[in-house]
Amino acid sequence: MTTAVRKVQNRNQARLLRLLRDRGPLSRAELTDAVTLSKSKVAVELDRLTAAGLVQDAGQAASRGGRPSSLVRLWDGLRFAGIDVGATSINVAITDGGLTTLAQRQGDIDVSQGPEVVLRAASQMVRDLRAETGTESLAGIGAGVPGPVSFSEGFSVVPPIMPGWDKYPVRDRLSEEFDCPALLDNDVNIMAVGEFHAGAARGIGTFMFVKLGTGVGAGIFVDGHVHRGVDGSAGDIGHIQVHDQGPVCACGNIGCLEAFFSGAALRRDAVLAAQEGRSPFLAARLAERGALDVLDVADAATAGDPVVIAMIREGGRHIGEVLAKLVSFFNPGMIVIGGGLSNLGGTLLAELRGTIYRRSLPLATRNLPVVMSELGDSAGVLGAVRMISDHVFSHDPALRMADVRELA
Amino acid sequence: MTTAVRKVQNRNQARLLRLLRDRGPLSRAELTDAVTLSKSKVAVELDRLTAAGLVQDAGQAASRGGRPSSLVRLWDGLRFAGIDVGATSINVAITDGGLTTLAQRQGDIDVSQGPEVVLRAASQMVRDLRAETGTESLAGIGAGVPGPVSFSEGFSVVPPIMPGWDKYPVRDRLSEEFDCPALLDNDVNIMAVGEFHAGAARGIGTFMFVKLGTGVGAGIFVDGHVHRGVDGSAGDIGHIQVHDQGPVCACGNIGCLEAFFSGAALRRDAVLAAQEGRSPFLAARLAERGALDVLDVADAATAGDPVVIAMIREGGRHIGEVLAKLVSFFNPGMIVIGGGLSNLGGTLLAELRGTIYRRSLPLATRNLPVVMSELGDSAGVLGAVRMISDHVFSHDPALRMADVRELA
Repeated sequence: MTTAVRKVQNRNQARLLRLLRDRGPLSRAELTDAVTLSKSKVAVELDRLTAAGLVQDAGQAASRGGRPSSLVRLWDGLRFAGIDVGATSINVAITDGGLTTLAQRQGDIDVSQGPEVVLRAASQMVRDLRAETGTESLAGIGAGVPGPVSFSEGFSVVPPIMPGWDKYPVRDRLSEEFDCPALLDNDVNIMAVGEFHAGAARGIGTFMFVKLGTGVGAGIFVDGHVHRGVDGSAGDIGHIQVHDQGPVCACGNIGCLEAFFSGAALRRDAVLAAQEGRSPFLAARLAERGALDVLDVADAATAGDPVVIAMIREGGRHIGEVLAKLVSFFNPGMIVIGGGLSNLGGTLLAELRGTIYRRSLPLATRNLPVVMSELGDSAGVLGAVRMISDHVFSHDPALRMADVRELA
Repeated sequence: MTTAVRKVQNRNQARLLRLLRDRGPLSRAELTDAVTLSKSKVAVELDRLTAAGLVQDAGQAASRGGRPSSLVRLWDGLRFAGIDVGATSINVAITDGGLTTLAQRQGDIDVSQGPEVVLRAASQMVRDLRAETGTESLAGIGAGVPGPVSFSEGFSVVPPIMPGWDKYPVRDRLSEEFDCPALLDNDVNIMAVGEFHAGAARGIGTFMFVKLGTGVGAGIFVDGHVHRGVDGSAGDIGHIQVHDQGPVCACGNIGCLEAFFSGAALRRDAVLAAQEGRSPFLAARLAERGALDVLDVADAATAGDPVVIAMIREGGRHIGEVLAKLVSFFNPGMIVIGGGLSNLGGTLLAELRGTIYRRSLPLATRNLPVVMSELGDSAGVLGAVRMISDHVFSHDPALRMADVRELA
């Protein structure tokens, strides 16, 4: 079965496919009600979708009183792949048409090794998972990388931590290799899409997802769509300057948000606190392991280490002060906090909330939940498959390129 | 002719009306091409729109080779009214269906006198302009007020400088009084709509309009739509805290952006500079007039008063630092500066641009023009009539409430 055969022909087919993706098998009667088309029109479209290998019969539905209606579901051989490339790790998943994960794998990489090395690893993981799940062909691949992306062109643009990736045709390479449609976005946007699809922000059209990882970034949803900005750099809040003075950032500037607080900054501060003897807990851990990571810091906080707790509080305050300004500007319906630093848990969340609520306009925060990611490490791959499934289950080329979007 | 008669019945009628509004009289052949419908379908819809008193014939079009095609235009009796309520002034205009201003009037008010007094003045101005322009009835009224607005409910919500306006039914009162549809938004949003319709941001779907007036606020456009946020408070950047210490703001907090730089802050600083003898120019002007306003400050800058120039530069830097953060977050395609302080001209604009370009991410500013408003005092009323005309020229109630929006 080739890609061309699977093409969606019109808006009604797209709506039927998304209904079946989001609600599971439905009876013909339920589908007819949901799309407000005539029974015969729905039957025609379902026949075409069946012929295209996108849907299949699924037996008889429970009777609603009249003649029993047959159940319809997405073709059970439909497969999407999601690839979430982080700075130091890679997550790959294969799902069915309804975006249920069939198999998932995580690996260590170093994104600075360049696209050839990283994509070779990613492709191998996809091939392994295909074998594991008996997947013949993929209906689409969604991918995310940790830096600014030109969504329409399918490549990274001057990514600061990704030497060699600038304008490398990631999307087209994946599309060719696996002979299916592909889309590329930045990692924070696909995590936001994941939380929108099945996580903390389900049903919330306008929200911010804030990734506190090695770097800091935001994914922005406006009315159910990802807001990428005119150059694809929207949400790039890690290099917002929070002070004239301060630590030098990896980008070369002084006082950037992520130079104050991020995975990288926290490791730097934790090692310093260990070496200077201010944190006996971290000193012992450093002596034991030779390095410190976010989980060590979280353990120190749980053990009640006052220096570490103060470190987390100060970091949360820096992030919160920036978010408070953005809340006044953007007035979101929710803020979801994700990324590795969300392992710091309650202390971080309390400081973030306190700062945001204290510093933003009361009108903008009276209905503003600030919550932790529900999907954790899976947000990215799930967002990636949601993104590509919206693309595949569309008929309009403009809409297909616009990705995640509710069909009106 | 009643409101009910003018109701648009379907999407094609809405598209025809907006084409005639935005492009002026068109031939039936041109309309047929533009909406990609059959000639006979277009003829049917035009007949219905003519019967509804929304369009009319306008003679013969120049021949395109075949049979001459007749010209169609919006009914020349169509009238929209726009009301732009500021903190200290009110602007009212009446336009035709194509949004050409037929008459405009400005008056002084004090918005703190409450909605009864202010709306009585506004209504009188609308009535005067109706008499002046021979307007029988209005097809719609758009209005803006200087504070947070619940767009869907049509009233102000806890507006800081507007005692008595909280939840006062402005929209419904205007709609009843003039027997036509009405919409209410905040003043900055309608100014942004005006610049989008016919000003600096024409054709720019994603941009920020920044009003530097008595207060400071932003109007946000995302993909051709006003972004109001979930509580209608998006763009309320005047109370973003820029320093822990600093002047006390009218809102009661310390260090708000508009306490550092705004019309109110500038008057305060100018009077101080005059009284303390730091600015001989302003001291002389104050002695002469007993008060100082933005134009006095602009004159002092033009005359080369170094203290005043430094004052404007420092203010521009404060605004620019906040805008730089928002640019990194939002990645707009343009920033338009409007409001009374735009009279400060080149000095202010240079400082704003310098700060924004220096402090934002290079990727987000490489295509970012920062320009002055083209419409000045007329941006608000023009945006108000554009907003209500989009509402009137729609068929879908959801779309009608969503206002400014390109029909796909």
